[in-house]
Amino acid sequence: MQEGRYRIPVVEKILSTNDQLAEENARRFDRFGVSVVNIMAAPGGGKTSLILCTIEALRGQRRIGVIEGDVASQVDSQRIAAAEVPVVQINTGGQCHLDANMIRGALSRLPLEQIDLLLIENVGNLICPVGFKLGEHRRVAITSVPEGDDKPYKYPAIFQAVNAVVINKLDLLPYLDFNLTAFRELVRAVNPNVALFDVSCKTGQGIEEWAAWLMDADV
Amino acid sequence: MQEGRYRIPVVEKILSTNDQLAEENARRFDRFGVSVVNIMAAPGGGKTSLILCTIEALRGQRRIGVIEGDVASQVDSQRIAAAEVPVVQINTGGQCHLDANMIRGALSRLPLEQIDLLLIENVGNLICPVGFKLGEHRRVAITSVPEGDDKPYKYPAIFQAVNAVVINKLDLLPYLDFNLTAFRELVRAVNPNVALFDVSCKTGQGIEEWAAWLMDADV
Repeated sequence: MQEGRYRIPVVEKILSTNDQLAEENARRFDRFGVSVVNIMAAPGGGKTSLILCTIEALRGQRRIGVIEGDVASQVDSQRIAAAEVPVVQINTGGQCHLDANMIRGALSRLPLEQIDLLLIENVGNLICPVGFKLGEHRRVAITSVPEGDDKPYKYPAIFQAVNAVVINKLDLLPYLDFNLTAFRELVRAVNPNVALFDVSCKTGQGIEEWAAWLMDADV
Repeated sequence: MQEGRYRIPVVEKILSTNDQLAEENARRFDRFGVSVVNIMAAPGGGKTSLILCTIEALRGQRRIGVIEGDVASQVDSQRIAAAEVPVVQINTGGQCHLDANMIRGALSRLPLEQIDLLLIENVGNLICPVGFKLGEHRRVAITSVPEGDDKPYKYPAIFQAVNAVVINKLDLLPYLDFNLTAFRELVRAVNPNVALFDVSCKTGQGIEEWAAWLMDADV
């Protein structure tokens, strides 16, 4: 059979709009040499506190920028701005997660050429943010001790999706029934290669190891 | 002009599928005389613990049934079953909230004629559950003290949508910077008529008032 005159174009591996925008964000980050971390946690898990601790721990070593994601308010970005680092607040207006398009919009408001490490605080939610790539290099979940040690049973997807889990509010351990060993085992059961950090943003415990991991660009 | 032979049917006030199913659930609850409470909170806010406290506080006064909503696992329903009340676990398999259809499915597994008060534990999430009616009579949000007193700024919709807010883990107040007065004022600013309860499921503080409110069918 004679070959037709026109070749049929075949488009392979169609990306979702979000994935496509996330790849564009990622290329932009790489062009500017910015390492990007997507920080996810339940409401009140201590995302902003961890970012503030990290800013202090890395002051003079890495130039940090922050994107704050919240359904409403600028409470968190005001705390970050007080630490004198560039910060953009995204208010999702009801949406339960950040997406790549929101990040793209925020990037035009950040001096990327002056940033080595961009910390993105996602909306407080253990479920929905996991499904939306932002263009980040690493993903982190925080579990705070008061939330209880059973979270990997109930929210397995987020613990599978991250490069590191930060166990926060360790200073409250004496007042709560949180089994650290059991929690670590549960997390490793769903994600054997995950990095684990025990920290307290209140006392500073464990922040040094966490900050060292952030600086390690090869992770 | 002569009137046409056929009248055009006009369907008014189209309900969403979820709202329609929620109304069907509500009628079923009323037929069986079951009072239904939808309990929402962030992961680790203490929903299951509050339900367990409530079961003990109302034992002999109200016949309680429970529906447990989680993305995965039966951790919570096992704790409820140990208290010897009828319980159904709904695993949403990734979905970030309960909906009316899930509740409808669960009702066929509950002895409604033997239940006075049905407590529904929604998926741990401060955002998404608010948009889905289940057929409940009352909605409750829990905020636990370790989450911080700024939550009404960040998640206004849930605080606007509920009949009561339970401030849980009050026993941890000495170890945390949580301004009770400020929190109450924030909540009342978005929802002036909301009932507020300060409780500790650990010490039992405030459980009596909360249980009395639950028994008050006229609320």
